[in-house]
Amino acid sequence: MADGFAQQLPLANLTVVVNTGDDFEHLGLTICPDLDTVCYMLAGLANPATGWGLRDDSWRAIEQVARLGGPAWFRLGDLDLATHLVRTHLLKQGERLTAVTRHLCAQWGIQPSVLPMSDEPAPTLIVTDEGVLPFQHWFVERQWQPAVREVLLPDDVRASGAVIAALEKADVVVLAPSNPFVSLDPILNVYPIRAMIMDVPEVVVAVSPIVGGVAIKGPAAKMLQERGLPVSPQAIVDYYGDLIDVFVYDRQDQGAVNSPDHELLCTDTIMHDRDARARLAREILAYTEELA
Amino acid sequence: MADGFAQQLPLANLTVVVNTGDDFEHLGLTICPDLDTVCYMLAGLANPATGWGLRDDSWRAIEQVARLGGPAWFRLGDLDLATHLVRTHLLKQGERLTAVTRHLCAQWGIQPSVLPMSDEPAPTLIVTDEGVLPFQHWFVERQWQPAVREVLLPDDVRASGAVIAALEKADVVVLAPSNPFVSLDPILNVYPIRAMIMDVPEVVVAVSPIVGGVAIKGPAAKMLQERGLPVSPQAIVDYYGDLIDVFVYDRQDQGAVNSPDHELLCTDTIMHDRDARARLAREILAYTEELA
Repeated sequence: MADGFAQQLPLANLTVVVNTGDDFEHLGLTICPDLDTVCYMLAGLANPATGWGLRDDSWRAIEQVARLGGPAWFRLGDLDLATHLVRTHLLKQGERLTAVTRHLCAQWGIQPSVLPMSDEPAPTLIVTDEGVLPFQHWFVERQWQPAVREVLLPDDVRASGAVIAALEKADVVVLAPSNPFVSLDPILNVYPIRAMIMDVPEVVVAVSPIVGGVAIKGPAAKMLQERGLPVSPQAIVDYYGDLIDVFVYDRQDQGAVNSPDHELLCTDTIMHDRDARARLAREILAYTEELA
Repeated sequence: MADGFAQQLPLANLTVVVNTGDDFEHLGLTICPDLDTVCYMLAGLANPATGWGLRDDSWRAIEQVARLGGPAWFRLGDLDLATHLVRTHLLKQGERLTAVTRHLCAQWGIQPSVLPMSDEPAPTLIVTDEGVLPFQHWFVERQWQPAVREVLLPDDVRASGAVIAALEKADVVVLAPSNPFVSLDPILNVYPIRAMIMDVPEVVVAVSPIVGGVAIKGPAAKMLQERGLPVSPQAIVDYYGDLIDVFVYDRQDQGAVNSPDHELLCTDTIMHDRDARARLAREILAYTEELA
């Protein structure tokens, strides 16, 4: 979705606020999986086969970690490792994550502003039937199989000044078609992001991550079922409620959403390739311009 | 030298106590260059071309670190990185460096006991004409060029129990032909290693790192000159003084050592290959047995 808007907007007009609830310390390194995935995509370096990591990466270090009896469940590529090494180096020197991310984006030639939601640690914890798991241990190591009873988000995290400034001047806020519970809620939960989105006059759009009864990727469908909710865009629009103005859902679900309080945009939402990402972004921008 | 003794002794009889004054935190990782060099050598994995690092390593991660504007002066190979990642992981879990090293040695199939001199941090600082530098910044980043005014060793570091136990039962202690000021002194300075070597009845041997007026490798010759001392084995035997019983120096310097208080073994000391290492170790063992 970020790449779609990057293709459609003057680059200085796009800010991507990224979940850092997934971040963790691993093998001594500070790893920010969502920041990296967004940046690799915007830099044109993303691995299209996996949806994470870098294209043309290799696995010598992590395979050697496995041989040495270390934890190899989080697959760090040799090139990808450099991102974590440099980030960790700069953080240890006292830089804030926002500044570190700006540095890395400059090296990658990324022009939109990519902002971690906060400079403070904000770890998401997953309360499962098998105990409380740090996010990546649940998501990657356990492949999101343990049933989720609750998502624990820290309640005292503050947004960075850069995020607040971006929200203050935003005309349109788009909640990407990510998992509402573990990808969007961690951002919305950072003070005062939810309140700013509720109060300020910009148009707020959400794109459904559920299409045709399944999640396009990840555990959103499974988590809806575990909450006793239908796996449908209706459950998503109901969940966001009055936080959003516009709900975008897929043509496959035409007629399946009924929400008198929202503007509804029914279109093709599955972003198979660069062009599809640009088209969806263009449609959302055109729709919100018409509203305004 | 360690490899020579490993070829000559029953492996359970050999303990290698290693300088950890060179250790440093870099890019988030705990790096122990001397431990790694010793272990890679004993495992048969050392890179013979460099004298450090692993054979057949690659440089994708560190070259990417350079591209991202990070510090790349300490050349971490992709396979070598795994050592630091696993070590850092285990240390962060609360393991001591002695136990971490034992774990890694087991993975590498190393049978002699390889012991860090201490489980406490013991950073060597180099006071130079250009300021105080942490050891690796002087040795690697600045390629030991800034003139050394003083080597600062911490005065409150204690040996591990494993080192003390090994010294208690040692028949022969050999100070390897390393730099006396920055490789041996950091070990001897750890309490109570110097006192144990002085007091206990084992035979203490030192091998000269100076041959034919030069250091076989590293800054020993330059450091002798900066101290106003001759670049000769005589300067080394004088420096160790009554700490040692036997002094081993090279045939190239025959007649150049005069030290009535020491037993002198003049032989070929340059260890070009595995066989040369084994031969020197064999000669030292034979000589000390004759003494005893």
